[in-house]
Amino acid sequence: MTPSLLDAISAWKAAVGDEYVDLDTETLSRVATATFATSNQSPAVIHPSNREEVQTCVQIANRYRIPIYPVSTGKNWGNGSSAPTANNCVILHLGRLNKITELDQKQACVTIEPGVTQGQLSHFLRESKSGLWVDVTGASAETSLIGNIMERGVGYSPYSNRVSKICRLEVVLPDGRFIVTGFGKYGNAHADRVYPWGLGPSLDGLFTQSNLGIVTRLTLWLMPEPERMECFYFKAHGEDKLVDIIDALQPLKLRGILQSAVHIGNNYKVVNTYYQYPWKLTGGKTPMSESVLKDLARSIGCDDWSGSGSLYGTKNQVKEAKRILRRALTKKVTKLSFMTDSSLAVARRFPGILGKLLGVDLKSVFPIIESIYGMQKGIPSDVTMSTPYWRKKQAPPEIRDPDRDHCGLIWYSPVAPLDGSHATAMYQISKQILLTYAFEPLIAFALMSERALCGVIAIVYDRDVPGEDERAMACHRELVLKLSAAGYYPYRAGIQNMPNLTPEGDRDYVKLISHQLKQVFDPDNILSPGRYEF
Amino acid sequence: MTPSLLDAISAWKAAVGDEYVDLDTETLSRVATATFATSNQSPAVIHPSNREEVQTCVQIANRYRIPIYPVSTGKNWGNGSSAPTANNCVILHLGRLNKITELDQKQACVTIEPGVTQGQLSHFLRESKSGLWVDVTGASAETSLIGNIMERGVGYSPYSNRVSKICRLEVVLPDGRFIVTGFGKYGNAHADRVYPWGLGPSLDGLFTQSNLGIVTRLTLWLMPEPERMECFYFKAHGEDKLVDIIDALQPLKLRGILQSAVHIGNNYKVVNTYYQYPWKLTGGKTPMSESVLKDLARSIGCDDWSGSGSLYGTKNQVKEAKRILRRALTKKVTKLSFMTDSSLAVARRFPGILGKLLGVDLKSVFPIIESIYGMQKGIPSDVTMSTPYWRKKQAPPEIRDPDRDHCGLIWYSPVAPLDGSHATAMYQISKQILLTYAFEPLIAFALMSERALCGVIAIVYDRDVPGEDERAMACHRELVLKLSAAGYYPYRAGIQNMPNLTPEGDRDYVKLISHQLKQVFDPDNILSPGRYEF
Repeated sequence: MTPSLLDAISAWKAAVGDEYVDLDTETLSRVATATFATSNQSPAVIHPSNREEVQTCVQIANRYRIPIYPVSTGKNWGNGSSAPTANNCVILHLGRLNKITELDQKQACVTIEPGVTQGQLSHFLRESKSGLWVDVTGASAETSLIGNIMERGVGYSPYSNRVSKICRLEVVLPDGRFIVTGFGKYGNAHADRVYPWGLGPSLDGLFTQSNLGIVTRLTLWLMPEPERMECFYFKAHGEDKLVDIIDALQPLKLRGILQSAVHIGNNYKVVNTYYQYPWKLTGGKTPMSESVLKDLARSIGCDDWSGSGSLYGTKNQVKEAKRILRRALTKKVTKLSFMTDSSLAVARRFPGILGKLLGVDLKSVFPIIESIYGMQKGIPSDVTMSTPYWRKKQAPPEIRDPDRDHCGLIWYSPVAPLDGSHATAMYQISKQILLTYAFEPLIAFALMSERALCGVIAIVYDRDVPGEDERAMACHRELVLKLSAAGYYPYRAGIQNMPNLTPEGDRDYVKLISHQLKQVFDPDNILSPGRYEF
Repeated sequence: MTPSLLDAISAWKAAVGDEYVDLDTETLSRVATATFATSNQSPAVIHPSNREEVQTCVQIANRYRIPIYPVSTGKNWGNGSSAPTANNCVILHLGRLNKITELDQKQACVTIEPGVTQGQLSHFLRESKSGLWVDVTGASAETSLIGNIMERGVGYSPYSNRVSKICRLEVVLPDGRFIVTGFGKYGNAHADRVYPWGLGPSLDGLFTQSNLGIVTRLTLWLMPEPERMECFYFKAHGEDKLVDIIDALQPLKLRGILQSAVHIGNNYKVVNTYYQYPWKLTGGKTPMSESVLKDLARSIGCDDWSGSGSLYGTKNQVKEAKRILRRALTKKVTKLSFMTDSSLAVARRFPGILGKLLGVDLKSVFPIIESIYGMQKGIPSDVTMSTPYWRKKQAPPEIRDPDRDHCGLIWYSPVAPLDGSHATAMYQISKQILLTYAFEPLIAFALMSERALCGVIAIVYDRDVPGEDERAMACHRELVLKLSAAGYYPYRAGIQNMPNLTPEGDRDYVKLISHQLKQVFDPDNILSPGRYEF
């Protein structure tokens, strides 16, 4: 350790308490580990407990010129976990800032800190009988809401476009100053939590996907529980059906008939949700053959494509949406089923009936269907936490930790207009690349807004197998290159993708973002160097 | 003129052509005139025809350090028209950038330039049988879309929150550089017009209500024409009914049953839409007495409050929304009526029937009702153009120009949570102030989003009456002070309000916005000095 680092650590200890500056070798190894190869190390992990401490920590970082790297809960699996984008960054772990304040039932909003997990808020809203739902992502219940929102993550419900449902950001700037955005800058404004823009230029966008500030609190808008919700599931036969399905659903998304995100996964993706890699059936070989895939798919009754989403509203509204959805998907899907709280209750007692309803035999399907159902109404699930363990030889442990367990996982999510031909183009490019690198093409699509679609591509492997880290990264690099060349750019970047963000032509943009704005907000370049820089 | 200004003018002439640099005294007097007292003069008006010329003009402004003040069409009546926020700014008039490009019917979006008016786009969409509607405001058909959107103006339809329906901003920075926001920075990105965020920090918010850039083009999302639209109108008796109505509609806005903005105006406001000031009835005195108000209100069948909005969707969806709306407003309104294309067609032939339907006698009501109906489906109207002429002694001329005709008009629009008690608080404060200053309290409320409400307050007077300019400005100043003290801040600022924006407590915010960001974008401080500075 350099003398200035030692001084900084003393100062941080004085600021947050000795026990909250963690220098333990095991901890430092853990925070530098992701679900793919990383090389940057951290000399310390600091755990402030409130905004004032964050501000002090940042001021200390400036004083001693030690770069810091904030993480909310550090569970950004597949995109870098808590591993920093530059070497020797001190991790600023915000997990102790975990307060839920200012629940406003009438205006359906709540104020949260970065340590608040989606499970925590979901539980709080149910316990307090708020009648409000939080949008959740497919990630674990233990993941941070703010961490995901500031990366512009996408959930399941009509509030899935989370970054457009936030207001009044409290931000510690990298030079140690503190600001409140929107009307929050006026201390007494009543509309500060309901109207995001405030007066004058709006800064909120600057703090999403950036290294320009640390959000220590924000107000999140919540969805009022509807009179009725019906979850729908569909299956389709033939890879080419993707075009038809997307194009059939596109006008429904545009017109707001479908308000939830809709997810459509290929057979690989669905098999991956239910099973670990079939080492016996494949005789220990990778990748999985088409015939094994078909067998497994058949066993859980899944076809080439499986989709799900939800309808929300009054009884009559949902009835009308169902009518339109049925008509739109006629002849495009082989099966379209609906599930409600009451049909789920019946199914819980008689799983066989559910199996019949969905055209599957296995009772084991039930917990997964139930989890997907719960996510549509704001109850997070760890069901997707089996994904990273796909290629592992052992069953996933009780408490899953993909970093610790050397699971290999890299996410990549290119965006396109909501259009069947774009979905197919992205699918063909990415499937081909994944197969070339001998990974199963675990691919889904999310209808993420009225006009946009994103691919959800997972490179899943076992980090304990020699050479796989390198092969996965090469595969990722080719995905980035080929998809970008074809005009499909990701909606977010993992730490492994940060060096690929620079646009080829637009020098003025690069200069503005990477040099000039950074200079204003962070003159000493101490906040997350390398993160979303162009 | 200073030598550097003369040099700059020569350079501008060379850049855009002699005939597009206007030094005519009459022009200069016109652009410096607003609907209230102004003191800043302009030495020239430049009319570039495209983005490249805008860029050149900005570079020239930097070279000679001459401040410029861009206006789109300059019809920002009630907020400063085209009058600059600082003396000696050259007006950069963007009216010749009036191209509509890249209409995408499937994704329902279109790319426009700042000179494109809402009337122009509305006409274009109907002519091209696009099946798409543009959200329009209550302002004239001749007003700029981009001009209004960048001020975060609010329209009538489900797309009324216009600033959240834009994508891919092309921006000339005040130092002469040019950037494209969102995915636009990647030249080949397919999603650049449908997904606004791009990758990395989002800059769009910085260019709204600011002097940090000149938007020369953007993509605007449009609303697909629904199967059915029904416009609703209601009336309520008793000033205290405002609380009940707002609180009855609030859950419907929050739950998306009501997707359009809903406007609720007091009796003064409605009378003002139908009549000019009743000089005879009042014996030439101002303000109008309560009894004259009641007489006029009775003559057009309006009660203490009048409201309107629209329901959109399939036939069944609209039917369901009607059911819920009726139930919500029971006993809160004295009349609730609906209008459709077909009932409008009947009414056009037999105005008497419409009168009966709405509980009014006058056939003259019809054109106004028809205009409000049209605005809900993207057809702008000049019906509100009678407002500024309220206190004039002459009838409004055929071609209305409130600046030229010395109409006095100052808008003020404070924002609050969507809540009856806040509406009442804002109403009491502002009504009291307007009456104190002897202006009619022309006040409406707009349910502008799921969670926010804004007051629409107009100070209307005759600039030809000595002393009125000063009295109106004093009234405005008191509105600003009292409403701010009560926690209600406006969603936008007119040029007369720019000096009042600075938050009392938040020095860090002020320093960041007004000094540091401005310095990055505009080192020579040549773009709209004084506009949205803190």
